[in-house]
Amino acid sequence: MPATLTDADLELLTEGNFAVLATLYEDGAPHSTVTWVDAADGHVLVNTAEGRKKDRNLRRNPRASVTAIGEDFYRWVSIQGNVVDRVTGPQAEAHIDTLSRRYDGEPWTPVPGQVRVMYRIVPQRIIRYRR
Amino acid sequence: MPATLTDADLELLTEGNFAVLATLYEDGAPHSTVTWVDAADGHVLVNTAEGRKKDRNLRRNPRASVTAIGEDFYRWVSIQGNVVDRVTGPQAEAHIDTLSRRYDGEPWTPVPGQVRVMYRIVPQRIIRYRR
Repeated sequence: MPATLTDADLELLTEGNFAVLATLYEDGAPHSTVTWVDAADGHVLVNTAEGRKKDRNLRRNPRASVTAIGEDFYRWVSIQGNVVDRVTGPQAEAHIDTLSRRYDGEPWTPVPGQVRVMYRIVPQRIIRYRR
Repeated sequence: MPATLTDADLELLTEGNFAVLATLYEDGAPHSTVTWVDAADGHVLVNTAEGRKKDRNLRRNPRASVTAIGEDFYRWVSIQGNVVDRVTGPQAEAHIDTLSRRYDGEPWTPVPGQVRVMYRIVPQRIIRYRR
């Protein structure tokens, strides 16, 4: 059964904090990278470029975790969930532009030949921490 | 074949930066939490309390990733590796005290009944990022 994101979770996920996205290698070991993060409609959103390792991992295995970290590292939320949607095209391009403005304060500069991919992740387990 | 930690990796791992430790749930999904981190003798070190989820996960499945993040989130290293040693007793107690002094600037206050556990992780794959 899906888990529900609280207002405090959404604050961490949508206010320009960084996250660590863990996906799974072919052999089942965890692959982790730092990423921008977002949330909408009860889902965690991440945006990457087609063909990157995390994209290839998520296409093969939908299980992921996203750990969004507050400024002092003593406030965070970690969401384990499953990919339910992989979006490319105008919606994914618009989404990376939104993130660029939020994180960098400026529009996204498209990279020639790069296809953006937005993943929707449904929360299954949520770990919350505040010191 | 093990991967080798560079001086820049060691700097991120041993100078009081925070890390996200990913382990694996029983069902193979990633479990991630924020943690203090350290390194010695080519190994990544993490210290937890016996019986915590990450301890139970690592006892069952030695595969982990540790992502150490610099202050601005645009410099990080993520190490996927395998646990080769699980240490309890005086060495694990001394290690959490070292970390407490490094991160909090004060000695560790032991928690009655809590057994500290130090894990040694051998790097297998290393992802490095600097914007």
